[in-house]
Amino acid sequence: MKKVINNPNYVVEEMINGLIKAYPEYLKRVDNYNVIVRKSAPNKKVALVSGGGSGHEPAHAGYVGYGMLDAAVLGEVFTSPTPDQIYEAIKAVDAGDGVLLIIKNYTGDVMNFEITKEMAEMEGIKVESVIVNDDVAVENSLYTAGRRGIAGTVFVHKIAGAMAEEGASLEEVKRVAQKVINNVRSMGMALTPCTVPAAGKPNFTLQEDEMEIGMGIHGEPGTHREKIKPADEIVEHMLNKIFDDMPLSENDDVAVMVNGLSGTPLMELYIVNNKVNDVLKSKGVNVYRTYVGEYMTSLEMAGFSISILKLDEELKRLLDAKANTVAFKVL
Amino acid sequence: MKKVINNPNYVVEEMINGLIKAYPEYLKRVDNYNVIVRKSAPNKKVALVSGGGSGHEPAHAGYVGYGMLDAAVLGEVFTSPTPDQIYEAIKAVDAGDGVLLIIKNYTGDVMNFEITKEMAEMEGIKVESVIVNDDVAVENSLYTAGRRGIAGTVFVHKIAGAMAEEGASLEEVKRVAQKVINNVRSMGMALTPCTVPAAGKPNFTLQEDEMEIGMGIHGEPGTHREKIKPADEIVEHMLNKIFDDMPLSENDDVAVMVNGLSGTPLMELYIVNNKVNDVLKSKGVNVYRTYVGEYMTSLEMAGFSISILKLDEELKRLLDAKANTVAFKVL
Repeated sequence: MKKVINNPNYVVEEMINGLIKAYPEYLKRVDNYNVIVRKSAPNKKVALVSGGGSGHEPAHAGYVGYGMLDAAVLGEVFTSPTPDQIYEAIKAVDAGDGVLLIIKNYTGDVMNFEITKEMAEMEGIKVESVIVNDDVAVENSLYTAGRRGIAGTVFVHKIAGAMAEEGASLEEVKRVAQKVINNVRSMGMALTPCTVPAAGKPNFTLQEDEMEIGMGIHGEPGTHREKIKPADEIVEHMLNKIFDDMPLSENDDVAVMVNGLSGTPLMELYIVNNKVNDVLKSKGVNVYRTYVGEYMTSLEMAGFSISILKLDEELKRLLDAKANTVAFKVL
Repeated sequence: MKKVINNPNYVVEEMINGLIKAYPEYLKRVDNYNVIVRKSAPNKKVALVSGGGSGHEPAHAGYVGYGMLDAAVLGEVFTSPTPDQIYEAIKAVDAGDGVLLIIKNYTGDVMNFEITKEMAEMEGIKVESVIVNDDVAVENSLYTAGRRGIAGTVFVHKIAGAMAEEGASLEEVKRVAQKVINNVRSMGMALTPCTVPAAGKPNFTLQEDEMEIGMGIHGEPGTHREKIKPADEIVEHMLNKIFDDMPLSENDDVAVMVNGLSGTPLMELYIVNNKVNDVLKSKGVNVYRTYVGEYMTSLEMAGFSISILKLDEELKRLLDAKANTVAFKVL
């Protein structure tokens, strides 16, 4: 795979520099760490920290800012950030009201964030954590015990971030984050592999007429491979997997995210959404908000995921609250 | 190239439906036409209409909304919209204060928009037009006499749209649109071709170690092909081409857009911006705002463009004015 890079070993460093230079009005870096925090000093409020391996941009640094995260910790490509990095993020943003860690369910992430939580607690910082495991495709996977955390995580950032911005307590922010996790389900598929720059070769192969259903955001295996089908059939299959796990009833309200993994053009994501919306409407489900775009990517992989979040009045209010980050804005 | 579609002949129709279903709070379709207008009725203000072939999403429908466009006209993939479609857009949004057409410089677009302008004028609608030709790579091209219009067009939408929203006259809105055009320069490159769905095969070929410099957003030939170089060298070459055409002086203020053509991940666009920013700073140029993302794409093509807009106080004010569209928001 062709890449516009300089040195595969410095992609994260150069990406962070390019990001900060692009958006100095939003973001700053904690010196000597791969930690990105809000430009303005933390308010008196609960602080939200997320992170994970790089290669999923705009996740998570693109969600640092008003109404969402306070800090993002960036690991190497597809590699969990280390506890010393996470610890710096917590220290940088704690304003005395406590810190919520939003962790995607990968074994390395969970281990390193949880170790750091204990370190911070020993220093007297109140820390809570939630683990996002929205991917219904497979139980247990290459890097995961249980289900993987994928694009549904962005809903956790948005909604818990809005709650924190309202001045809620750490317990309340954690409660609403967990409510999102309990009510969000996702499923992905891939048309092409991706190449970790330092590895230099694709992490798997697919034939020219083949797709993989249930693929993870690091190229972890999905449920099966088959010949590429029409978009509508792919969508129906994926939604059925989601509905098997989280049944929806008539008059339920949902938010939809059709997330591009990076190599798939917006045109195709809109075609996917056309069917997602039809299927939901045919079940009498009310689509309250839809987000189509690249929210959690996999380097240059072609493919997409669908996330469905079941909403109540509290979640609707927080989803629509003002947000001002590089990658997610609500006026 | 693998695609998530149903029928190659209906991609534009299904895309429009998927877009409107995603964002009913922003957009509606003019019945029976490939014309997308703002959800809310047009205010008393100058109306802005743009459009062109599909395959460049989020351009242009993603820029319909408060502070930017009033209507976007969508042609078939890489094909100019027809005069009857453009005419419907003009009629749908004219509120009596006149309409500005923002046209990218492709022969078909210019012809069809200019024909329609005459039709509308005969019906008593005041219509003015501007032609965007920001691409410095080549003079004359596959579909163009003169220079091509590419991602710099988004700056025209943003700034002219803000001027119209302030209540300025058609002449004033046209003046500021032309000021943007006079002060914006872009250049692109590609790593891979793209495939028009109905054609079913790539529109050109590049070797696995090759890139094309100066490539257009429909795969039109650029200045030359060469082996892929490090990102920093590519950026220096492209910026030098821009500076040759639009010299910058110490203390000039600029806006930068690093635009992904679709297949290139955000990580690489940030790495590109890291160098763009360094080169501009080394010349003493002040980077006032930077936008990194996918603003004008080419189906699934991998590659990017750099746009540089020289700013004065008026352009800065309008660039920062509130905007609320699907693909471009300023709080």
